[in-house]
Amino acid sequence: MLIVMKPGATRTQVTAVLQRVEELGCKGHSMPGRNRTAIGVTGNQGPLPTERFGSLDGIARLIPVSPPYKLVSREMQSENTIVRIGDLEVGGGQFHVIAGPCSVESREQILSVARSVAAAGATMLRGGAFKPRTSPYVFQGLKEEGLKLLAEARDETGLYIVTEVKDTDTLPMVADYADVLQVGARNMQNYSLLEAIGKTDRAVLLKRGMSATIKEVLMAAEYIFSAGNQRVMLCERGIRTFETMTRNTLDLGAVAVMRDLSHLPVIVDPSHGIGIRKHVPKLSRAAAALGCDGLIIEVHPKPDEALSDGDQSLTPELFEQTMHDLRKILPVVGSTLATRAD
Amino acid sequence: MLIVMKPGATRTQVTAVLQRVEELGCKGHSMPGRNRTAIGVTGNQGPLPTERFGSLDGIARLIPVSPPYKLVSREMQSENTIVRIGDLEVGGGQFHVIAGPCSVESREQILSVARSVAAAGATMLRGGAFKPRTSPYVFQGLKEEGLKLLAEARDETGLYIVTEVKDTDTLPMVADYADVLQVGARNMQNYSLLEAIGKTDRAVLLKRGMSATIKEVLMAAEYIFSAGNQRVMLCERGIRTFETMTRNTLDLGAVAVMRDLSHLPVIVDPSHGIGIRKHVPKLSRAAAALGCDGLIIEVHPKPDEALSDGDQSLTPELFEQTMHDLRKILPVVGSTLATRAD
Amino acid sequence: MLIVMKPGATRTQVTAVLQRVEELGCKGHSMPGRNRTAIGVTGNQGPLPTERFGSLDGIARLIPVSPPYKLVSREMQSENTIVRIGDLEVGGGQFHVIAGPCSVESREQILSVARSVAAAGATMLRGGAFKPRTSPYVFQGLKEEGLKLLAEARDETGLYIVTEVKDTDTLPMVADYADVLQVGARNMQNYSLLEAIGKTDRAVLLKRGMSATIKEVLMAAEYIFSAGNQRVMLCERGIRTFETMTRNTLDLGAVAVMRDLSHLPVIVDPSHGIGIRKHVPKLSRAAAALGCDGLIIEVHPKPDEALSDGDQSLTPELFEQTMHDLRKILPVVGSTLATRAD
Amino acid sequence: MLIVMKPGATRTQVTAVLQRVEELGCKGHSMPGRNRTAIGVTGNQGPLPTERFGSLDGIARLIPVSPPYKLVSREMQSENTIVRIGDLEVGGGQFHVIAGPCSVESREQILSVARSVAAAGATMLRGGAFKPRTSPYVFQGLKEEGLKLLAEARDETGLYIVTEVKDTDTLPMVADYADVLQVGARNMQNYSLLEAIGKTDRAVLLKRGMSATIKEVLMAAEYIFSAGNQRVMLCERGIRTFETMTRNTLDLGAVAVMRDLSHLPVIVDPSHGIGIRKHVPKLSRAAAALGCDGLIIEVHPKPDEALSDGDQSLTPELFEQTMHDLRKILPVVGSTLATRAD
Repeated sequence: MLIVMKPGATRTQVTAVLQRVEELGCKGHSMPGRNRTAIGVTGNQGPLPTERFGSLDGIARLIPVSPPYKLVSREMQSENTIVRIGDLEVGGGQFHVIAGPCSVESREQILSVARSVAAAGATMLRGGAFKPRTSPYVFQGLKEEGLKLLAEARDETGLYIVTEVKDTDTLPMVADYADVLQVGARNMQNYSLLEAIGKTDRAVLLKRGMSATIKEVLMAAEYIFSAGNQRVMLCERGIRTFETMTRNTLDLGAVAVMRDLSHLPVIVDPSHGIGIRKHVPKLSRAAAALGCDGLIIEVHPKPDEALSDGDQSLTPELFEQTMHDLRKILPVVGSTLATRAD
Repeated sequence: MLIVMKPGATRTQVTAVLQRVEELGCKGHSMPGRNRTAIGVTGNQGPLPTERFGSLDGIARLIPVSPPYKLVSREMQSENTIVRIGDLEVGGGQFHVIAGPCSVESREQILSVARSVAAAGATMLRGGAFKPRTSPYVFQGLKEEGLKLLAEARDETGLYIVTEVKDTDTLPMVADYADVLQVGARNMQNYSLLEAIGKTDRAVLLKRGMSATIKEVLMAAEYIFSAGNQRVMLCERGIRTFETMTRNTLDLGAVAVMRDLSHLPVIVDPSHGIGIRKHVPKLSRAAAALGCDGLIIEVHPKPDEALSDGDQSLTPELFEQTMHDLRKILPVVGSTLATRAD
Repeated sequence: MLIVMKPGATRTQVTAVLQRVEELGCKGHSMPGRNRTAIGVTGNQGPLPTERFGSLDGIARLIPVSPPYKLVSREMQSENTIVRIGDLEVGGGQFHVIAGPCSVESREQILSVARSVAAAGATMLRGGAFKPRTSPYVFQGLKEEGLKLLAEARDETGLYIVTEVKDTDTLPMVADYADVLQVGARNMQNYSLLEAIGKTDRAVLLKRGMSATIKEVLMAAEYIFSAGNQRVMLCERGIRTFETMTRNTLDLGAVAVMRDLSHLPVIVDPSHGIGIRKHVPKLSRAAAALGCDGLIIEVHPKPDEALSDGDQSLTPELFEQTMHDLRKILPVVGSTLATRAD
Repeated sequence: MLIVMKPGATRTQVTAVLQRVEELGCKGHSMPGRNRTAIGVTGNQGPLPTERFGSLDGIARLIPVSPPYKLVSREMQSENTIVRIGDLEVGGGQFHVIAGPCSVESREQILSVARSVAAAGATMLRGGAFKPRTSPYVFQGLKEEGLKLLAEARDETGLYIVTEVKDTDTLPMVADYADVLQVGARNMQNYSLLEAIGKTDRAVLLKRGMSATIKEVLMAAEYIFSAGNQRVMLCERGIRTFETMTRNTLDLGAVAVMRDLSHLPVIVDPSHGIGIRKHVPKLSRAAAALGCDGLIIEVHPKPDEALSDGDQSLTPELFEQTMHDLRKILPVVGSTLATRAD
């Protein structure tokens, strides 16, 4: 931490601050400058309690220096983490596409989507069985029935299953069926859920909260990590800004920064990132060309009849075209589309 | 809903839209304009499924007309809801101040704060026993021990207890001790928690999420309401914006709008709203002069030694001065400071 | 500035950084910590060129310590600046209300408003003659004719004139008529205009840009100051956020912070701050109770017929009621409503 | 426009609204619904004055239907506008890269950059001669001397010149030298400047304001268009959000939407879009893969010694590598890198 004194701070005030630093078991380095003195603090383990300086006079500002996340940072581990899901490896150079409907709606629907996205080259199937919805009056998911249908689709197609876990109560049931537990944007700071997931052995897809900073995303991953589960994939799905013509503002710059600061894989969700079907393929291509580890895309056999997110779901045809384009773009960034071991 | 056709839409396209409206059991009103045709839809119960129009040609935009919240709106109930907590009435004209530390830290601390805020005129005591924190490495609260200390403080001072409930697992325990269940900003869209709280008989203080729109706050309240619990107080605690000099941006305009659109009481949290101790009294006065139903303020006997939020906690002296000012401002807006029935 | 080295930075890398610091004529203070070394830099005049460190290895982050604004800061001048406008003093404890229509529309309109706001206790008259509008197709103001009408209203009522200056071309003309030059939110970073205004002797009302940080507002004021004009009043008028139910989000927390960091008066614009007539009086009371130096409020004799901003303009009756409330609130914060010397 | 009445609105209130609509020369279509009546308004030219409904009772909301921009919309012109700059065509399928330093600093610097970006395949040279800077104390550009150096670089390399115009005073001089007038983000709503530029015959690169909505960008372009200049290119350069780890948040979703709503070319600025050198090539690739009409990239021979924006400038080597990647990505989206006619 750096403690910046006010321009007119007295020698006595500086001494009092240095003394408080020592009381906390740290070392203070006084740097008298042209206009003001700054005091560098070293030797602390973890963040210093800023409150302890609140009553001291002459302090202008306290500036934290070390990032609060540890385990998920490149400073701790410089090589990429590879998250293994069955025979798949995410984060090691191969590009994975997770595809499927927003919600599992029926046996026919999910099997139909699974077959078409598998044929087009996806390695994992997405589909919500427990849906957090902003309105209590709309479809909330098929629940365990939906999970069973996902398992059936896995058995038939070999696609691994990514599905959202909504709360700690249903976590054991969801973990029974899922290969990857998705934490939704609204639950990114649901710490009880993060801790519980951290105690399972399931891979995790952690979505960035609607207004979460990059630092907060990494801290949420740190929660899961520190509870014992290191199989975490980060997911950028757009943030909330003043712009209302798009559902969210997809922050591809954050993808570059997260991939740089952390050793965890980063997946991009272009569907929620813009919310408009015809633009989803464009953002899919952009994310691949940037250099992320994969995509999660909503696909529905009949988007017009979807019970949720129909406006942003690709048709199987649009999805296939998108995969076609990705195959050509990925080699430019030294990646290739992953394939399932049949 | 209003369906706006593109300028060049054909008669056949308009007819197809009108037919789809009828299939959904509604009535379409065609309005041919100078440049384009618009189609008003009436007769629907609840929001229309916009997906059903996704494949039809010639549509420029779909504009929803009715707000998605019902039970909490003034359109449903024009008179103010009065939330009764013991002998207190919130929302009926009297102004309530909830005060106390961020976290319950010790018996001595909580009793000391309780006595001083009671003496200064607070009617409720706040204090966290289960703390959601952004870092897994910092103090997470005293848990049940903290709840017991809050109950002891209530017994001694007569202050009602407001404390945060973090998850469904600990909800029954927290509900055993608390008079008011606080839903934190990060849990505002934790629907499983909202539903569970909706099935209790406890009053609720629902904090606005960091990036929640007014509409989303009202939808979150609607979740609790529709599950059976009508004793909900809304709480504005600042939103996240681009400004970083303040912890959050307190949105007093939203307080005015929420009070107008909904019949529920609105409480303001100036402590989280700015995060800087010396400015908290100013925002407290501002919120009272605006015309809200109460405040929730962090007070700590020794803010410098607080285990959390010390930077924004008032000293008992500053709190007393603030209450003094509120007593003079409230009559201007036709309100008065509530008192406990001794 | 503080230079934070990466955890694994070598001694050679640290030495290279220290050498670069010396080349820039500054002094580097090395602070070896538990995990990493930090280097404090002192002795610099003005901000250090961060580019000069871009090619050096082993650097994790550069953290600026001193604020970039100087002349407008309390560190430079601790007592409040008092801006004198004729016999009025803004910033010295008296509270000023600037009122009037968005645009000057006609002789009858502006005289009618001027008389009613003067009678209710305003000290200055606002009214736009040159209007920056988002659409090229709407009313752009009466131009010089509007300025003449404002001058006539001043002659009759004794109200000083606040009017917007839109560009450098029309600045001389506007300065001829106006007592206070208003810089609109969209021009807050129009540096050519700021410099030109800085060379006039007119008082200035500088509106915060729609997405300007507090620091940027102060830097904009610094532009005017450094060009020679010290008669600057800051104006908070709401910022752009994700919330769309209100026209802007009035940031009263920023008012408290700006008043603290700078010696300049701060005026609040509740009309643009929310954009909804019935809520303007509430935010006016809130701003006064917070403790600012004045308000600028839109008033129109017939808001329904206003050529601009009618939705947020008060009727003369609502304005009078608001002034009535302000008179009662101001003494609580040690202020009183200013009066014109007749 | 759609006028939504309150649920309890009386027949008399509805009639009064219909009458007001007629007074404005329009036609009102009453649609009585289950809970409320809505009134569609047709026949209006341009936006309806919402103020005229302010005093009528029973109205819940007014919803605008038509977009406010006309000339720049696809509804007005469905084919892409092609902006011709000398022998170049922007917007017609070829991809253009504008490259060069933030500021022109010296003859040696600008000629060196010009040669290297020309060799790597750029078609235009950027470089600021008049720099709007947030601080009055830093380098403001070489002014006319800088323009002359740009012209010299054009003569030698054949690159067309893109340079910022800061105000109306210097517009004639800048237009004398420049091929493309750049309007900076802070000037996007400087309407006096837009109008003046609209009267020149120069091509324009219009940067999106820091917090400008897509609609506002299009309205700014409409200003230039309606003044007579149709050679406008839009430029996405990142918006301001709550995220502070990146300089701005590049909004590629907005690029897709603007390209769809308007017939104007869209250029992307990845340098300001993230502000971190090592990530600029990634965002460059992403923007090309999305499908825009070109890029504007900051390149400096010695970024460490740049007088401005050194942190985000590419070295000539990094730029060359980026161009290499673009050549491989563009064919995937049916585009190719443009070349200068030598």
